[in-house]
Amino acid sequence: MRKYPKAPPLLAAVDCIIFGFDGQKLNLLVIKRRLAPEKGKWSLMGGFVQQKENLDEAAARVLKEMTGLDGVYMEQLYSFGDPKRDPEARTISIAYFALIDSTQYEAQLTHEFQAEWFPLKKVPKLIFDHDTMVKAARKQLQYKAALHPLLLELLPAKFTLPQLQLLYEQVFDTQFDKRNFSRKVLSTGLLIKQTDKDKVGSRKGAYYYKLNKREYRTNFQAFLNIIPNAHHFI
Amino acid sequence: MRKYPKAPPLLAAVDCIIFGFDGQKLNLLVIKRRLAPEKGKWSLMGGFVQQKENLDEAAARVLKEMTGLDGVYMEQLYSFGDPKRDPEARTISIAYFALIDSTQYEAQLTHEFQAEWFPLKKVPKLIFDHDTMVKAARKQLQYKAALHPLLLELLPAKFTLPQLQLLYEQVFDTQFDKRNFSRKVLSTGLLIKQTDKDKVGSRKGAYYYKLNKREYRTNFQAFLNIIPNAHHFI
Repeated sequence: MRKYPKAPPLLAAVDCIIFGFDGQKLNLLVIKRRLAPEKGKWSLMGGFVQQKENLDEAAARVLKEMTGLDGVYMEQLYSFGDPKRDPEARTISIAYFALIDSTQYEAQLTHEFQAEWFPLKKVPKLIFDHDTMVKAARKQLQYKAALHPLLLELLPAKFTLPQLQLLYEQVFDTQFDKRNFSRKVLSTGLLIKQTDKDKVGSRKGAYYYKLNKREYRTNFQAFLNIIPNAHHFI
Repeated sequence: MRKYPKAPPLLAAVDCIIFGFDGQKLNLLVIKRRLAPEKGKWSLMGGFVQQKENLDEAAARVLKEMTGLDGVYMEQLYSFGDPKRDPEARTISIAYFALIDSTQYEAQLTHEFQAEWFPLKKVPKLIFDHDTMVKAARKQLQYKAALHPLLLELLPAKFTLPQLQLLYEQVFDTQFDKRNFSRKVLSTGLLIKQTDKDKVGSRKGAYYYKLNKREYRTNFQAFLNIIPNAHHFI
């Protein structure tokens, strides 16, 4: 590497914050770290940026190597650069985050890799500044979900309104009034009611819905009025 | 520097995108680069992250060293890491951006430093990927300004509605209907009408307004309904 004067070299890493919804719980994907320091502790999926890859490529490669997850759309979140964040070497970390329907990926993960899903409220202490990264990702998720219908993409092909409400309540860490929530979410015009019901959750059962994908794509950038007091979250 | 196995060292830089409003024009601050490669070409204010500073500190130091601007609130925007973005050495750049009332800083800049303001439409070609950085900053500015009243902070202590409209039109690169814009901006309750008029701009004159700072602080996170079709910008 040629050098500029007065430019101290350092390391650049990517860390991936992956939220997954399994139909009931909103979970975070973590892994047991495989190198020192902090070997064996819980960590985000992270690794060093290599010479010939850009940041998006590094994040996708690291995620695939550590979990088997491929083709997951991740967004760059924020870069973390406290000089002491990694005690081994000065490392700047570029954090990425993604939301996935984890039911689509379950088998892949558990068979081949040491990655685990934890419900958001039960995530163990993570290494370095990874807890701060998760907090930032969650705030960004709230901000986006308050404005855009992106959470709908997290749901299985067929879902019920109680399931949808569970998801929103976990993202915003609050409880919504059931009738009010249903009314607001149906008024978006993004959901198509099915004729069959899920009868596991309650005696009466809950109708299944599907996402109107065409409307969803057209309206992705539109304001979404699902969240009461959305301005608390943005 | 101790090293991890398989971790190629690289350089980390910060680049500062500073937008300033002078009461008429929305400008971008650029500087003539002082080192090779691309010496003498127009550039954002940039420099390398040093060993003992975090990213915010690096951005503040670089901005101060290159322009004299001190105490400017900057936000981290995005990190740029194409392997070939800097032909001299592999460098990841963490971009920061800020909005300032440039009338407060004019003297400082022109006397001591080689920094210059260019109107957004007349910014010269910048080095490396700095044009992309400016584009990203502008998009972020539109996104935030469509949702929050942050542009009001860019105005001089006393301003007119035509001035405010000029600012919004430059940020969104579009024209707004005058009567509609005035009505919407006044309905926010954030402006206090003064008794005196600016008589330079037109024969009839335009009343001065001041920002209601208490309301502004309370409502900073609130949705702001100034922009028609705000969803085009977010």
